[in-house]
Amino acid sequence: MKRRELLTAAGLGLGAAALSGCRSDEPAVAGEGQAQQRFRWRMVTSWPKNFPGLGTTAEYFADLVNQLSGGRLQVQLFAAGELVPALEVFDAVAGGTAELGHSAAYYWRGKTSAASFFTAVPFGLNAQEMNAWLYNAGGLELWQRAYADFGVMPLPCGNTGVQMAGWFNREINSLDDLRGLKMRIPGFGGEVMSRAGVTTVSIPGSEMFTALQTGVIDATEWVSPYNDLAFGLHQAGKYYYYPGWQEPCAVLELTINQQAFEQLPSDLQEVVRAAARATNQAMLDEYTLRNAEALDTLVNQHQVQLRKLPDDVLTRLHELSIDVLEETADSSELNREIWDSMEAFRKKVWPSQQLGEQAMYALRD
Amino acid sequence: MKRRELLTAAGLGLGAAALSGCRSDEPAVAGEGQAQQRFRWRMVTSWPKNFPGLGTTAEYFADLVNQLSGGRLQVQLFAAGELVPALEVFDAVAGGTAELGHSAAYYWRGKTSAASFFTAVPFGLNAQEMNAWLYNAGGLELWQRAYADFGVMPLPCGNTGVQMAGWFNREINSLDDLRGLKMRIPGFGGEVMSRAGVTTVSIPGSEMFTALQTGVIDATEWVSPYNDLAFGLHQAGKYYYYPGWQEPCAVLELTINQQAFEQLPSDLQEVVRAAARATNQAMLDEYTLRNAEALDTLVNQHQVQLRKLPDDVLTRLHELSIDVLEETADSSELNREIWDSMEAFRKKVWPSQQLGEQAMYALRD
Repeated sequence: MKRRELLTAAGLGLGAAALSGCRSDEPAVAGEGQAQQRFRWRMVTSWPKNFPGLGTTAEYFADLVNQLSGGRLQVQLFAAGELVPALEVFDAVAGGTAELGHSAAYYWRGKTSAASFFTAVPFGLNAQEMNAWLYNAGGLELWQRAYADFGVMPLPCGNTGVQMAGWFNREINSLDDLRGLKMRIPGFGGEVMSRAGVTTVSIPGSEMFTALQTGVIDATEWVSPYNDLAFGLHQAGKYYYYPGWQEPCAVLELTINQQAFEQLPSDLQEVVRAAARATNQAMLDEYTLRNAEALDTLVNQHQVQLRKLPDDVLTRLHELSIDVLEETADSSELNREIWDSMEAFRKKVWPSQQLGEQAMYALRD
Repeated sequence: MKRRELLTAAGLGLGAAALSGCRSDEPAVAGEGQAQQRFRWRMVTSWPKNFPGLGTTAEYFADLVNQLSGGRLQVQLFAAGELVPALEVFDAVAGGTAELGHSAAYYWRGKTSAASFFTAVPFGLNAQEMNAWLYNAGGLELWQRAYADFGVMPLPCGNTGVQMAGWFNREINSLDDLRGLKMRIPGFGGEVMSRAGVTTVSIPGSEMFTALQTGVIDATEWVSPYNDLAFGLHQAGKYYYYPGWQEPCAVLELTINQQAFEQLPSDLQEVVRAAARATNQAMLDEYTLRNAEALDTLVNQHQVQLRKLPDDVLTRLHELSIDVLEETADSSELNREIWDSMEAFRKKVWPSQQLGEQAMYALRD
């Protein structure tokens, strides 16, 4: 089901001849014969309306497309549940119920396990590295191949930066403290925790607060200070652990119905691509500020107790992460190609990141 | 001198009535009455044609604007010296010889000392932090105020990431080794080095290689492995020092003639803004990959000797940097506002950067 309105300039008797004032050596204005062509697209998301950082990023993208296209590509935004439920965004875009979706790739691992790699990888790439891998080292091409059979094209469209390890109501001083812990932690991180002896629990975000407060779970991870504060998790969790080994960054995903995309004139295709890239940057910028402000509020106003996961726990989680990632890579040729590409990239950039970003951070200590 | 061609749709008898198929509650398509309006802009740069990373970033921006606008805003690119010399980019944009310029703000410190702050600040913000400060914490507004009297509007449009400290033909084991050293190092870094006893030398980039090779200078800083390798500096310099305390990132600058900008319809204004933001991200992505590749080539193919500046040297350079920055801040109200804003931001984000980016890098060791 496609829902768009087309007004073709041809029907208005407006042809190239109308531009006879142009010098002949100038390239044609794209869309000259279609300058009035107009598209109305639907964009479904996995976020509540105006949800801090996530819902607002989807909104930023939609507004940007509307502005860049001068209204020729109008994007109508739907919060989770308005048109389709939060976790049916991918299906809606694949089936054409909506032309665009905003969500996170790892929700679709049930459809294609390759999707797991494109949100966050434990102990993997940070935001700067993930962007470089996606855009300059073949990552985006692999992601697009993973979705090609579904008629869906993905683009990165937002990044949280490094997350936190989560909220715990029990101190973690050794590996033993993980055994029997009941924790809500999805994705690769959840699989790793499971292998470390944690009882991982699957509950929707909306029930997380109550579950933690009432002791149904002992721990939960969510995002980072900005989102965690907004959710009030400090009122239910005692210790706030770092670093976010399970998500050194998390990429948000724009999904595009391939057939709809191909019907856009080339300038509007580029509008979608460039708006996604600008939005990708904008969200990280926002999180860099908001996480800092929220961390300050949590620590200084709410007296939240920060804790660092012990080194031996992190070392073990790292070993288990490699096991999980290698097994996932072994499950298909494409997965192997993706994981090898990411790891090769991480190893390639690490020396220059060490001399650069890491060495500069060290000077601040 | 403005050079653009306008073709108004009004002259073609195309009015809003032609769009009567639209529902009345829809916002008007921006540019409906001006859908055929066309602009040709000139963009002058401080870079040689196709210069790796810098010239190619300007080209990326120009191409993106052409594509996003469907050819309605055509940007014609001029390398340094083609229309105006490298260091007359700002004047050309202010005077209207060109509508756009691509360069670096610190070249214009002679016009307004505030400009110094918007490329790089010793021991200051890295790329992620600089973007967040500019876009989400008032930095860009301050930058735009600094140029307002010149009729020029700046936007960030590229970032190198962390640089290297430079190429030295003398080992730096203590502060004493800096005394009498002849080094090419411009900007704040040069002032700091001067105070540390270095004889700073001002020579154009084009003469740098020969000066280093023939011993006219003992040391030079340029950018980072990607650009330094392209320049062949490893053939003239013995030790390659890090970290790049003087430029924890360097922002490239798009300058826009304010009057020309105001004459654009709002959709094309947004095209310029979004293209700059997407380009800003694209350059950092490119440098993250290319610096890694170039560092590997320098170390493993050319046996370049990496050296870290000693801690006591870095500590002293940091003290001197604060002196220089404070003095610059004292020279005008705007400078004080800029420097206080940057420093407040760096202090605000440091705790969350520590728990996040820095803690994650540490896990890799």
